[in-house]
Amino acid sequence: MTDRILRVNMTNLQTTWQDLPEEYKMLGGRGLTSRIIANEVPPGCHPLSSSNKFIVAPGLLGGTTAPQSGRISIGGKSPLTGGIKESNAGGVIAQKLGSLGIRAIVVEGKAPAGELYLLEVMENEARLVKVKDLAGKGCYEVTDAIWDRYDKKVGVLTIGPAGEMCLTSAGVSVTDPNGSPGRFAGRGGLGALLGSKGLKAIVVLTDKTFEAHYYDEERFKAAAKRFVEVLRKNPVSGQTLPAYGTNGLVNVINEAGALPTRNFREGRFEGAENVSGERMARLIKERGGKTGHPCHPGCVIKCSNIYNDKNGDVLVSPLEYETVWALGPHCGIDDLDAIASMNRLCNDIGVDTIETGGAVGVAMEAGLIPFGDAQGAIGLIEQIKQGTPLGRIIGSGAAVTGQTFGVERVGVVKKQHITAYDPRAMKGIGVTYATSPMGADHTAGYSVAVNILRQGGYVDPLSPKGQVEISRNLQVATATIDSLGLCIFIAFSFLEQEESLGLILEMINSKTGSAWTAEDFTRLGEEILKTELNFNRRAGFTEAEDRLPDFFETEELPPHNEVFDVEPHELDTLFNFAEEVKKDAGKAASLR
Amino acid sequence: MTDRILRVNMTNLQTTWQDLPEEYKMLGGRGLTSRIIANEVPPGCHPLSSSNKFIVAPGLLGGTTAPQSGRISIGGKSPLTGGIKESNAGGVIAQKLGSLGIRAIVVEGKAPAGELYLLEVMENEARLVKVKDLAGKGCYEVTDAIWDRYDKKVGVLTIGPAGEMCLTSAGVSVTDPNGSPGRFAGRGGLGALLGSKGLKAIVVLTDKTFEAHYYDEERFKAAAKRFVEVLRKNPVSGQTLPAYGTNGLVNVINEAGALPTRNFREGRFEGAENVSGERMARLIKERGGKTGHPCHPGCVIKCSNIYNDKNGDVLVSPLEYETVWALGPHCGIDDLDAIASMNRLCNDIGVDTIETGGAVGVAMEAGLIPFGDAQGAIGLIEQIKQGTPLGRIIGSGAAVTGQTFGVERVGVVKKQHITAYDPRAMKGIGVTYATSPMGADHTAGYSVAVNILRQGGYVDPLSPKGQVEISRNLQVATATIDSLGLCIFIAFSFLEQEESLGLILEMINSKTGSAWTAEDFTRLGEEILKTELNFNRRAGFTEAEDRLPDFFETEELPPHNEVFDVEPHELDTLFNFAEEVKKDAGKAASLR
Repeated sequence: MTDRILRVNMTNLQTTWQDLPEEYKMLGGRGLTSRIIANEVPPGCHPLSSSNKFIVAPGLLGGTTAPQSGRISIGGKSPLTGGIKESNAGGVIAQKLGSLGIRAIVVEGKAPAGELYLLEVMENEARLVKVKDLAGKGCYEVTDAIWDRYDKKVGVLTIGPAGEMCLTSAGVSVTDPNGSPGRFAGRGGLGALLGSKGLKAIVVLTDKTFEAHYYDEERFKAAAKRFVEVLRKNPVSGQTLPAYGTNGLVNVINEAGALPTRNFREGRFEGAENVSGERMARLIKERGGKTGHPCHPGCVIKCSNIYNDKNGDVLVSPLEYETVWALGPHCGIDDLDAIASMNRLCNDIGVDTIETGGAVGVAMEAGLIPFGDAQGAIGLIEQIKQGTPLGRIIGSGAAVTGQTFGVERVGVVKKQHITAYDPRAMKGIGVTYATSPMGADHTAGYSVAVNILRQGGYVDPLSPKGQVEISRNLQVATATIDSLGLCIFIAFSFLEQEESLGLILEMINSKTGSAWTAEDFTRLGEEILKTELNFNRRAGFTEAEDRLPDFFETEELPPHNEVFDVEPHELDTLFNFAEEVKKDAGKAASLR
Repeated sequence: MTDRILRVNMTNLQTTWQDLPEEYKMLGGRGLTSRIIANEVPPGCHPLSSSNKFIVAPGLLGGTTAPQSGRISIGGKSPLTGGIKESNAGGVIAQKLGSLGIRAIVVEGKAPAGELYLLEVMENEARLVKVKDLAGKGCYEVTDAIWDRYDKKVGVLTIGPAGEMCLTSAGVSVTDPNGSPGRFAGRGGLGALLGSKGLKAIVVLTDKTFEAHYYDEERFKAAAKRFVEVLRKNPVSGQTLPAYGTNGLVNVINEAGALPTRNFREGRFEGAENVSGERMARLIKERGGKTGHPCHPGCVIKCSNIYNDKNGDVLVSPLEYETVWALGPHCGIDDLDAIASMNRLCNDIGVDTIETGGAVGVAMEAGLIPFGDAQGAIGLIEQIKQGTPLGRIIGSGAAVTGQTFGVERVGVVKKQHITAYDPRAMKGIGVTYATSPMGADHTAGYSVAVNILRQGGYVDPLSPKGQVEISRNLQVATATIDSLGLCIFIAFSFLEQEESLGLILEMINSKTGSAWTAEDFTRLGEEILKTELNFNRRAGFTEAEDRLPDFFETEELPPHNEVFDVEPHELDTLFNFAEEVKKDAGKAASLR
């Protein structure tokens, strides 16, 4: 069977199947979304215009039995940053699409104003269905309604009211193996992009999960099995993550003095223990929730969880470190139940928890509500769903919240909010925030692995030295990992265990019949980044946007009293493998 | 007496006098504000940070008897566009500062949070005074309070509550010869910049008006006198402008099919006659107002007016074409009294009428209120003063209003709203909107003069051909005119009457002792633009930002059913005299 791309034209409401072009054969996930965007979307277009495209792509290993291969990439020109964007999530649909040989769904054009559709995707058929009744509905309600209409084995991708309102912090929800719609491709406002097209949800109607076709299935399965063992042997992916989830980082990052507190005013939070992974794990156990929960079929790391409320009812799944930070310490809030409630609310409305927490923190900085006011924060988030002017401000993200309230201290890069590691006390991640073509995004090159977790060596997080190199190497490797559809947490084994890379290559080659080497792995990552940088250059970005906000360079962060002091000219060497893109900047800018 | 710069440090609340550096000797107005910004403001800084500077500069001919020499330039890194900005206004303070030999006031740093000051400027002394009682006050009330405190002969520059709130459409008010605070350096959010510094107002305490010192006063006066005659002979500056004010353009531009109506949906407005300059002039006469009113001492064109309400009381002064358009046809409103009321409201709050009208039109596009709803529009503007979330959205300008309400059709370039000429039916001004380093700004290169008013030749407004050249020549000449402190309306004589340039050069040379030729006039304009382009490049702008919004290229404008079709690669030839700035873009971007 030939792999295919499903094209969905919202202007004429037609769907068509396209055989996968040769050019895209070895691309999946982020590699494929970014390449299609670069080929087909005018860099200068308005992100909400009919020229923009919303792209869904499982990784190259999607639908296989490779552990951690269930990430689904969502791509487009970002309504938040104005640059190219990929945001990925777990859930069930990557494995389903991979099993059907659907390498990408490309949503093009724009439905007539006021009309709202759902896309049904089957093995050889696809159909747009009007769904007026789902208008304005939250992600939980939409998912329930779709299950009632079809069955619980379908995979669902949906947007909440925030996406329909085209708010620039709107994300895309994906259902997980337990049926929660809490898997989010949250970043960059891609939910607004889908909303602008008049598409509320995509339903993948198949039971298939691990049915990708292989060039050599036996070889593949052997490599996959050995890779599972490698992941289990690594202390981070084999022990810490399953036990405490990502939220185990609260105490670690707080101890390191890099937990951004009250809108980046301090690096340690007095309430950290109350929101820590250890406490969360205890509460989950007491209340009959679940730790060690997989976010997608084939996940062996299982860093996810199911967080119950005091009555033992499911409140949210999962509760993650970045979310806990954004809605917690960033806002001076140390109440885990309140944070979990806000998380559920964000999931239902369909907004990125990081951007929302960022915006709420900026609103606190502006004096709308005091730092630490959990009920006030919940009130602000509820306004997003109501679509009030204040809700629309918060739902447009931290940059707009800062602009409308005249706040200078706003922690965004390329208008996207920074995450749970202060760049002054963890300088490697600061380099990633500043330079990633995605805007501030820790997952684009998780230098914390080296600065703090000591995976693949160690570089002092407080020193400006060596951080650019760490970030570069991780950004390149991550781009490839995102293209394969693998979870970023395989990076720990990748950094520490020599056999990892060989096993990944073996899986790629036995899946596709290729003969990739380590050089190809790096080359792919570099090419993806070059493609993205080139798009961004044509969209108007320059190195002037590869900078952190002023205040990180001028205000010292307690307790280390450090500023971010990686020199601009050093930051500009990050993409030293892409000099031709930089040189071409002036010329490229002439193109639409 | 040596000319001086007054430096006002808001961080330590000190004022210091600096002898004018040799480098600045032949610069005034925009030439001086832009050069100081380029030399002293880090291009990457947050516009509200203490690193940004607010600069006030009369033109090189400020304080002289040259006709039209009373424009005051305000400069800084724009809170609205993020690029370099100069916005100029009439009023009395340019002539006063010029008479005192104060070539620029540079406001630096930032006052302690919550403190608000007024700056008293005297001939050899300057003082910061705390003015808690003026906090939150509108520009009319502030001006009245200052007159009570000093006397009516002082010149006042102030911001309204919008500037204090750091809203990005906040402008700067300047008092005119009649004492109205209705002269506005409205564009680019420079009021927010002053607000961020904690400075509410600048009061120039002197009776002096035409007391600049001259190299050769007799020669100067002879040239100035002849220049008055030239201006009076030109049909536009001698007849049309005094009779109908700028608002005489309503019928002209409507007839040309280029009057942007209901957020750029049509090029002719059925209610144009109701808001025309002819009707306005009749109403003013009936109600005992005034046409042929000068905006600054020494103005002989007198395009300003005093518009009274039905009871014969002053409602607003002046009522200008761009304002009438933005708050009128752009919003589908044809009620001149309602428009004048909105104008007064904007002046009092201290927001740019163009940006505010733009934002209200976008709010109408979003369905908040219907097009044509004057009372609804007034309600939206009143919310800015109240600082409600919706008011803050509108007060942040059209781009933010579009972003928060998910509207794609937003007529901004570099986040600044387009003005009263649709670029599809008047392509020369479209070129200026797209390329000016100031963002969409008709005054930066008023191609309408050639496309419609047939001054200095004629180029068909509907043809893409030849428009880049017109815009280039006008942008260069305008930069010099803005540096001299001359009103842009001298451009008509400049385009039509050969003797104009010689007389301007004679005034420059007899004022300063220089020996400038026509080449110097052009060289200065080019150098100012290069300085501005270079700053913008270092701030992250590229040619990708020198574009109109998508919809002007895809949606045809009735009645001519034209799109904007000047090719991007042609737009990119506009600054063909600044190739080194473009080439340097990548490198320059590395600097802070």
